Parts: sequence; structure tokens; C-alpha cells
Amino acid sequence: MMIRFESDYTQGAVPEIMDALVKTNMEMTPGYGEDEYCLKAAEKIKLEAECENADVHFLVGGTQTNLTFISSVMRPYQAVICADTGHINVHECGSIEACGTKLLQLPSADGKIGAKEIEKIADGHFSDPIREHAVQPGLVYISFPTENGTLYSKKELEEIYRVCRKYGMLLYIDGARLGYGLASKGNDLELKDFPLLCDAFYIGGTKVGALFGEALVIVNDSCKRDFRYMLKQKGAMLAKGRLLGLQFDALFTDGLYHRISRHAALLAQKIRKAFEDKGIELLYDSPTNQQFPVLTKEQCDFLAGEFAFSPWCKVGSKFAVRFCTSWATDEKDVERLVEAIGNM
Amino acid sequence: MMIRFESDYTQGAVPEIMDALVKTNMEMTPGYGEDEYCLKAAEKIKLEAECENADVHFLVGGTQTNLTFISSVMRPYQAVICADTGHINVHECGSIEACGTKLLQLPSADGKIGAKEIEKIADGHFSDPIREHAVQPGLVYISFPTENGTLYSKKELEEIYRVCRKYGMLLYIDGARLGYGLASKGNDLELKDFPLLCDAFYIGGTKVGALFGEALVIVNDSCKRDFRYMLKQKGAMLAKGRLLGLQFDALFTDGLYHRISRHAALLAQKIRKAFEDKGIELLYDSPTNQQFPVLTKEQCDFLAGEFAFSPWCKVGSKFAVRFCTSWATDEKDVERLVEAIGNM
Amino acid sequence: MMIRFESDYTQGAVPEIMDALVKTNMEMTPGYGEDEYCLKAAEKIKLEAECENADVHFLVGGTQTNLTFISSVMRPYQAVICADTGHINVHECGSIEACGTKLLQLPSADGKIGAKEIEKIADGHFSDPIREHAVQPGLVYISFPTENGTLYSKKELEEIYRVCRKYGMLLYIDGARLGYGLASKGNDLELKDFPLLCDAFYIGGTKVGALFGEALVIVNDSCKRDFRYMLKQKGAMLAKGRLLGLQFDALFTDGLYHRISRHAALLAQKIRKAFEDKGIELLYDSPTNQQFPVLTKEQCDFLAGEFAFSPWCKVGSKFAVRFCTSWATDEKDVERLVEAIGNM
Amino acid sequence: MMIRFESDYTQGAVPEIMDALVKTNMEMTPGYGEDEYCLKAAEKIKLEAECENADVHFLVGGTQTNLTFISSVMRPYQAVICADTGHINVHECGSIEACGTKLLQLPSADGKIGAKEIEKIADGHFSDPIREHAVQPGLVYISFPTENGTLYSKKELEEIYRVCRKYGMLLYIDGARLGYGLASKGNDLELKDFPLLCDAFYIGGTKVGALFGEALVIVNDSCKRDFRYMLKQKGAMLAKGRLLGLQFDALFTDGLYHRISRHAALLAQKIRKAFEDKGIELLYDSPTNQQFPVLTKEQCDFLAGEFAFSPWCKVGSKFAVRFCTSWATDEKDVERLVEAIGNM
Repeated sequence: MMIRFESDYTQGAVPEIMDALVKTNMEMTPGYGEDEYCLKAAEKIKLEAECENADVHFLVGGTQTNLTFISSVMRPYQAVICADTGHINVHECGSIEACGTKLLQLPSADGKIGAKEIEKIADGHFSDPIREHAVQPGLVYISFPTENGTLYSKKELEEIYRVCRKYGMLLYIDGARLGYGLASKGNDLELKDFPLLCDAFYIGGTKVGALFGEALVIVNDSCKRDFRYMLKQKGAMLAKGRLLGLQFDALFTDGLYHRISRHAALLAQKIRKAFEDKGIELLYDSPTNQQFPVLTKEQCDFLAGEFAFSPWCKVGSKFAVRFCTSWATDEKDVERLVEAIGNM
Repeated sequence: MMIRFESDYTQGAVPEIMDALVKTNMEMTPGYGEDEYCLKAAEKIKLEAECENADVHFLVGGTQTNLTFISSVMRPYQAVICADTGHINVHECGSIEACGTKLLQLPSADGKIGAKEIEKIADGHFSDPIREHAVQPGLVYISFPTENGTLYSKKELEEIYRVCRKYGMLLYIDGARLGYGLASKGNDLELKDFPLLCDAFYIGGTKVGALFGEALVIVNDSCKRDFRYMLKQKGAMLAKGRLLGLQFDALFTDGLYHRISRHAALLAQKIRKAFEDKGIELLYDSPTNQQFPVLTKEQCDFLAGEFAFSPWCKVGSKFAVRFCTSWATDEKDVERLVEAIGNM
Repeated sequence: MMIRFESDYTQGAVPEIMDALVKTNMEMTPGYGEDEYCLKAAEKIKLEAECENADVHFLVGGTQTNLTFISSVMRPYQAVICADTGHINVHECGSIEACGTKLLQLPSADGKIGAKEIEKIADGHFSDPIREHAVQPGLVYISFPTENGTLYSKKELEEIYRVCRKYGMLLYIDGARLGYGLASKGNDLELKDFPLLCDAFYIGGTKVGALFGEALVIVNDSCKRDFRYMLKQKGAMLAKGRLLGLQFDALFTDGLYHRISRHAALLAQKIRKAFEDKGIELLYDSPTNQQFPVLTKEQCDFLAGEFAFSPWCKVGSKFAVRFCTSWATDEKDVERLVEAIGNM
Repeated sequence: MMIRFESDYTQGAVPEIMDALVKTNMEMTPGYGEDEYCLKAAEKIKLEAECENADVHFLVGGTQTNLTFISSVMRPYQAVICADTGHINVHECGSIEACGTKLLQLPSADGKIGAKEIEKIADGHFSDPIREHAVQPGLVYISFPTENGTLYSKKELEEIYRVCRKYGMLLYIDGARLGYGLASKGNDLELKDFPLLCDAFYIGGTKVGALFGEALVIVNDSCKRDFRYMLKQKGAMLAKGRLLGLQFDALFTDGLYHRISRHAALLAQKIRKAFEDKGIELLYDSPTNQQFPVLTKEQCDFLAGEFAFSPWCKVGSKFAVRFCTSWATDEKDVERLVEAIGNM
């Protein structure tokens, strides 16, 4: 049977979540995220993130979270600055534009964008005498980790946020794989740093241990107003909100979210090392759960006999592909992969 | 402890679903609704509904389903005709308008609208020489059952659909509580009638046995094109689509969906009869799982001591309230309520 | 040849405007409303309206003005309260909804809505415990005069504005025919009252002496920010802005706007009196330039032989029709109409 | 006094238009583009363009025309391919995105994009197995002339249109300066070629002799349906439509549109030659009415003493600037400029 590394959302949820779902199944709770489980989960997140004043909302998926938050804070003529590789730019089917907001794309080699380029585009706009003919940059969107597995350092985030504040732009961080980023070797950020370094971010559950669900943390007071109306309007207010609260309650109890993330990050580094030992180039310098080796056609075919992985892009005459680990990855499967890489 | 009748989505899912979730938790499946479970569930629905050519898509919630389908088929200047009491008009926070589409509201006493009024508004528009100053009716939205628990007869649906086709309007049916409608005494429609009487409808899961989920059945070929793009754009494409397919697979195996619906409908009629026996007026003639007795302040207070129910509206000096049953309602709780009504 | 009373925008502009257009034709001015003519016109309007701090913008037409302003100030989940007869509700092809905003319609017999009904709907919303399931009233739209020719008194406006401020809603007044309203017998409002009684309003030019153009006066500081971006985005920023500034400059020089408005209002009252003298019912009590007599089929046919007028609606077995005067109406044509009415 | 070359819309209209406006001022015509002048103008355009079956609509400005047409033909998940320098991408304040549609930008050095790059992006999309995660290319937008003064050859347009049809994409041409392009030396296209080479295009009036106005020519039947609703909804239906019809009637009588365009194109080439004779580099190879010399700071200052022109962009340590001619440019002013360039 095929051993699968093609994505980090092929399986269900951690046992703690499944147990809680079964155990609470017949409890009667208020709907729409106003139950005790949501309240408890929000409290635990605020406690760990050290942001008692934040608002925490639970949504079902990442695209939904991005479009609901961004459309809530943008005025019609404002635009979002993002990497051209950003998930909202390439893999959410124009969901932000469908809400009326333009994206201003910065070229990115590895998924990251820098404070300097952000400042340049913002400054170019605000110093233009006919600036109202163009959209006004209003928000910067980055992903942590990026879609390419790379990470921002604390210093990089600080610089980006400084630029944002200078030009009156919000900073929003897509944390679909936040756990894997935080658990990665070399990462110098903790959850509690995020409320100080951006206006809002979300903690991904779908790819990190949950059946589904993302926890949006709104730090900036100016972004909080009436957000539940937005949830409802965008179809993002789950009737049985308990299902979301309960999952994040489990994930943020006894460090579970981070424990499972470390598992994935560690196994990914084993895969990375196996490729490096074999002299295989990695397309991005990713310390997180996604690895992007650049393989020859023959190497691809060799591995494809036993393992599932994702195509990524052509690199000259070779092929970059993606291997993902997750909270659910079996260490034995990784060992088998490492062995196979050695035998390529 | 309070016995709760305030809504039909306070609890989790039927045991068959919970078992399947637990059992399949570590299976690896493709994402985004392209797994075997979704395929199987769609096949079962098409088989029972006798519409082999329909497209079936699974979404998470009702507001999401309504906005995704309607925004997919409307041109920018077209409008939706609906009852002023319709869910999209009053309880979805302007989600249809947020996608750019106006609602044309017909007054309704009991949640239903009639072919005659629909024809009048459509004819008024298309015969107006300056019609392009107004929106063009493009779709009729009705709910089965309505938000007030009432049902359309087969003949009424036939007449409405005839008017729709005459004026080139689509007919879309919101079936958030479809199971309860089909299972109700006096209902003369079966699931297989729906594909013949409308262009698209959805089969509600959230309120009828599932943790969450609605099955959208698109019958009219002209509405099918590229719908998966719409799902993605509106944040309605669940990453782990298996969770939806699996639930509808369970519900449409061995008649489970209908069996649990009959349970709820039957218990609701016991409640209704208890109110009638006591000489209490019911605001709407509802054969379904929602009952709306009109109570005095004293009667409200009396029942509120032991039972939870929802406020609805004032009726003169009295108060209409809502009692719901569901697939999860315990027969003993209904017996206790019946007894209490007798003692009012 | 037919004598035409069917609308108030069938002809060009007052001679003063035509002269100015010809005279300035080859002047080179900056574009986009930043020329001297726009500046001068804005100053004259602010002077007469006694609102030095207001922002004045010039747009081409009424629908454009309504949609640009309203979409500028609404958050996505907010809604506009208006009369069901309101121009934005029935004759602007869903332009407000196309920008994402729902309209909450109050029934109106004569085009007006009252402070009491507005308060009721606002209060109903804000006191609803699950209010985020519905849209939030954010702005009240009224027309002065209304689409039916009726007028609000100063007291009525004061009451409406008081309710608006109580619930944090903006008040916006559509003044497509503002001149005719101000010039009408019985009107107790002056231009300078408007900045005190609403957050924004527009002074109609298209129907009152100009070739085209509306002057939007934004009084409330919170509505002013970045409005020129909105103008540009909605295609409402005229390249040769001079054309707009110059027209309003002419209209607001030496009381021209009011002088031509009085002419129209006066002639309309002659028509009204002729109908009344003949015992003909008028559908609305209109002191302005639109009159709505209720005629028999025979009376319609009789007048239609010599005069053009607009159909309005059926009233039992009779027909309400519309006669408009304008700044361009010839007094002799009115005398001929009065005579004909006498002879019906 | 300053001699002004900074844009091509600083002045009013050709005398023929001014005369017609004055002469017809008190005529009573139906509103909203349904008058005889609009009819006549549309007929003349269709005759010259040899497209009897086309629909011709008159709008006030370019941004308005672009957003109204594009939003009329796009489904929500479709996107527009355009040059990154395209007017809709950089100078219309996100108006297309505000209608819900994403732009896919191709890098362009001189304002043009090629069939090959268009095919690559289209093919990349339609061959992607998870294509519904991204927007679907639905329309290609190009400008003739481009914003940089460059022109497509007939062969280039043919190749682009072939790719469009291959992938089911529409081709729409922004002709804000169409006249100047057609009148340029080296151009091998005539007006009658356009209906064969695209699905819709517009003939610019604002910059080519009119006070304002653009004539949208919809060739493809599938784009025609109900377009007048779109006009109304977007605030693009001028009440006194006569003003637009009359201007295009004048422009398309006796070849006026082309005669005035040739005037501008010819003068622009004199300016170009003067710069070339002086050894000054021109940023783009523009045969049309816009010229972009690359000047030193000293050269800029020298010319700025007597002439107004627009800043464009930095080129190394030099500055590209823009000089425009128009139908209204005085030949003597050009001679003076040529002389000054010689003396730099």
C-alpha cells in the first residue's frame, strides 16, 4: 500500500478530539459559538498568547477565515499587499477580490516578503499626487509558515509591523500551519509574540490536529467591532459551534497543539536530512513540515512506486515536489522513506 | 434540569455518524470533496431522488449553501423573489446582498408565497417599458418546510415552478429541514418529486441528524457549470470533505434520514395536540417539527419553569413561542411537556 | 406638436450654463474635479448652505451619487432603511445591493417615512439578542422632495435625525429635485438647514437646470475620508471636472438655482389647481413640480391627444398619471394644459 | 503663459460638438440613451465599423465603461488577464475588483502583452488538476493604443484573439485613445477590423474631441443580453442621453473623429523627431499622441520653464516624462516646443 506524504490534511483528528466529540455528542448547547466550549477554548488561547483583551472567533476553514476577516476591515478602495505566492493570491479562487478588494502582489522567491519592499510600495502610493486613481494599501497579509515552508524571524516581523504602523496598514498573519512553524528548529517566535507583532492572526486547526477549524485572534480593537455579523454573513458561523470550541479546547490543553506539531516538524527534518545526505537540492530552506526536494524524472519515478507526494513546479529539467508530514505521520513511514531516498 | 425544546440543532449527530467518524478517522483520503465517501453519498441521494444527472455538492451550513448557489446563478442585475419571512431575507445577515443580489420580498402570513403573487411581480417587471431601471426577477427562493413550519403541497410547487419557467426564473428550494417536511402528516411530496419541481434544492443535515452539512442537488444543467470554483471562492469547500460525504452516506443508508425525521415530526404533533386539547391557538398550521403556540404571559411563565423554548413574536397581548423537536428529542421529555400543558 | 410634461429632464441646460460652456471651451484646466470652477462652485454652495467645513463633490448623476456615497460609508453587514417607494429601492436597478448593502424597506403611502417607524425597526434590531443574524441598520435614506412630490417639514426631519443619532445611523438625503422642494409653497426648510439635519445630502442639477450633475455635500466628518478614491473606483470622477464645477458655479450665482426652481413649482401649482377645480383627485398632496392626478380612461385619452405625460399606477378603475414641470417649462404650455383640463 | 502638453483631456470639445449642443439645447428628447441622436450615432459607428449586428452603448467615461462591461460578462470566479501596466490594473482604483473580479497581471515592458504569454497563463490554468482553487481566466483586456502609446499590429491582434477563442476567453479592447492609434503612422488597423478581432471594444471620446463620452461596441452576441440593466445599475445611464449621442454623431460625421486624430498624431511625431534629433532616448516606441522622452534633471528644468508636461518614472539617474498632443493642440505651440528642444 502507498505511503502518503502528499498533504497534511488527509486524516481526521487527534484521539483527544475524537473522544471529546463522542463524549459530548448528546449535550445540549447554545448554537453559533456561544457555548461553554468556545468560551473555554478562547480563554486558553488568550492565556497562552498573553492577550487577555483579544477577541477569539472560531471558523471552519482557512479561506473562510481569510475572506471574512479581510473583508471586515477593508474599506472598498483599500488593497491588500501580499506575496505573489500567497495563498489568498493563488489558491483561494479570487475570494478576496470577490469581496471587492484588490491584491497588490510583491514578487517572492520563497514565500516571504520583506519590510523594505512593503515600505516601497506603500510609500510609492502615499506620495503619489494622484494617488486616488490607484487603490490604497490598507493591509499586509503574510503567512507563518509560508506556503513554501519558510519562516519569518522575530526581527523580520518586527520590521514589517513597524512599516505597517507607519503607513496605517494592518498586519494580518495566516497561520494555517502555525503550530508547525512554532515547533520548527530555528524558529525564534512564540505564540505570545504574535499579539504584539500584528493586528490579527489565526491559529490553524485543520492541518494541525483538528477535523477542521481555525481560531482567529483579533488583537487590534479597531478590527473587533461587530465581527459576529461578518461571521454570519459569510456563512462562517457554524450552527453547532461547540464542535469548534471543543476541538480547540482539546488542542490547547496540556500543550497538545505544540506536542503534535513538534512531532511533524521533527519527522520533516529527517526527510530533509535524507535528501541532503543524498546531495539533493531543496527548493526552499524550510524548517517546517513541508519539504520541497528537486528531483530528476528518474528519482521521482523511483519514489513514486512506494510513496505519494505532490508535484510542485519544474526547475530546469528537474522537478520540485512536496513531501508533507503532519501530526498523524507514522515515524515508521518516515524511516521507510529515508531508506528509499538513500537507495535512489 | 431544564428540558430543552428551543431549537433543533442543540445536539451532535446520530450514533451511526459518530461511529463512522471514529472508525474512519485515520483513513487517508483526497481532500475537497473528491473522496469515495462523497461519491457514495452523492450516488445514494441521486438514486433515491431519481435524478441520475444531477450534481450533488456537500457544504457545511445553510447560509453558506444559499449564498454560494444563488450567487453562482444570478447575473448582477437579477433579483431573488422570496417571502418577507424567508431565511435569506431576515436571518442570514444580508449574505445574498453582500454577493450583489437584491431580494424582492413578497408579504407572507405563514412563510409561504403563492404562484399568483410570484406571477404578478414577474409580469409587472417584464411588461414595464422602462424595466431596466429596476432589477430583473431571476430566481424564486422558497423553503420546504418554511421557517414557520408550513409546507407546500405538490400542486402548489407545480404552479410555482410553472410560473418560474414562464418567466425564465430559476426555482431554488431551501431544505434546511427537508427531512421533517417529508416526514410530516399530510405532506404529499417525496424526495424524488423535487428534481422535477425545481432547478436546485438542498437536503439539510445540520438540523436533521448530522453534526453539520447540507447536500445541494443541482438539477438544471445550466446551473452546474464550474460550481466547484464557487465552492472554493466562498470558503465552502471543506478541506476534509470526507466528513461531509460520510455523514450523508450514513443518513441515506437504510432510510435513516427519514426514520429520524418521522420521529421528530411525530413528537411535534403530540405537542401540537396537547396545545389544541387545551384550547391554545397555534400561530401557524404546522405539520412539521416546529410548533408555535400563542400563550399568555402566565402560561409562558408556567412552562418556562421546566422547559426551554424560543420567543417568536407578540400576538396582541399574548406571545407566540416556538417549540422544536428533532431527531434527538427524547419521547419521555415530550410526555412530560404534554402533561405540563395539560396542567397549565 | 405634442406639449410634453412627462418628465423634468427632457431638455438641456439654462442659458447661463450653455454660455459658460461655450466661453470656457478651450481653457486648459486640471482634470478630475480639481479645477478652479469646481473650487468656486463648492465655495458658493458651502456659503449658501452655511457649512464651511463640509466637503462638496460633483458627480454626474443621481444613481451614481447614491451608490458612491452609500457604499463609501456602509460596513458590509450594515443596511439602509428607506421607503419602499424610495428611488434606490425601485428605480436604480439594485445598485446599492450590487455594492453589497441590503435595503430595509418601510411601507410608505406617499413616499415619506416617519421617525416613529424608523425608530421601531432600529430598536427592534438593536434589542434583538441574536441581532447578528440580521443586518444592522446603518443609514437612513430619504428623498427631499420624495419620488411622489411630497415634502418633509423641518420638524419631521429633526425627529428623523434625532432617531438616527440615537441608534448611530447616518441620515442621507437624496435631493435630485431639491430645488423644486425648496421653492415649493408650504416648505419650511432652507438650504442652510440641511447641514444641520443630516450627515450628507445632494443638490440635484440634472433635473434642475443643468445638463447633468449633482453636488454631494458631506457634512459629517466621519464620512469624508478618502472619498475621492470612491469617486474614482465607481467611475464617478469626471475627467473634465470643469464641466461640473462650471454648471454649479452658474446655478449658485445670483440665486439662479432657486429662481428657476420657483418657476417650475409655480407652474405645477397652476396645473394642480386646474385639476382640483375640475374635481379631480390628486394621488399625493404634492406642493412640488410633480403632480399626480387620478383620471378616468376617457380623461387620459382626452389629454393624451395634445399632451405627453407619464403613466404612474392604477387606482381602482382609474389611472394615476404624472405631469412634471421644470425650469424649462413654457408658461404658455401650462396655460394650454389648464384650459384643456377645464374642457375635459 | 505656460504651454501645456501634460494630458490630452484638458480642454472642452471640437466646435462641431459645441455648436450642436447649443443648437439642440431646448429640444425635448426621451432620456437614457433612447433618443434619435443616440440612434443616429450608433448607426454611423456600425456603418463605419461594418458591424451592423453590434450593439452600441454610450457611456460617460472610461473607468465606467470598463467596469460596466467587464462586470457584465464575468462569472464570479472568472478573472481578467491584462498587462501589469493596464489602466484597469493601476489607474482605476480597483474598480474591477470592487465588482468582484480578480486581475491576472502579465509583466509588460511597453504596455503590450503577447499571444504567447496569454496562452501560457490560460493553458497553465486549464491543465491544472486542482484548477478550481484558482480563478479561471475569462477575459483578456488590452488597450489600443496602450497606456504607453504603443500599438498592436493586426497580426498581433489576430494571434491574441485566436488564443482567446481557443480557451473560451473574451477579448475586450480599451480604446480610450482609439482615434489617435488609428491615425498613427505605421498602424495597419482600421475601425472595421475591430469587430472581427475582439468581442467588444470602446471608441474613446473624452480624449478625442468630445466633452466626455465613450462608445462601447459589443460585437459578440453572448455579451449583449440585458446590458442596459448593467448601465443603470452602475450609474452609467446618463439621464440626458442625447448629450452622448449628439457628440458621437458629430464625431462620426464626415470623418471628423479621424481628422482630429491625425492632427494630434502628426504633431506628436514632430515632438518625437525633435527629441530624436537631439539624441534623446524615448522610453517607448510610440507612434501615437503620447511621447515619453528620457531627460536629465537639467533638461527637465529647462523645458519646465515654458512647458507643462507630466512626470512618468525614473530611468536610472534620468527621468522619463510624458508629452501629449490632442485634437486641440495648437501647431504653433508644437513649433515652439521643437525649437526649445533644439536649444536644450
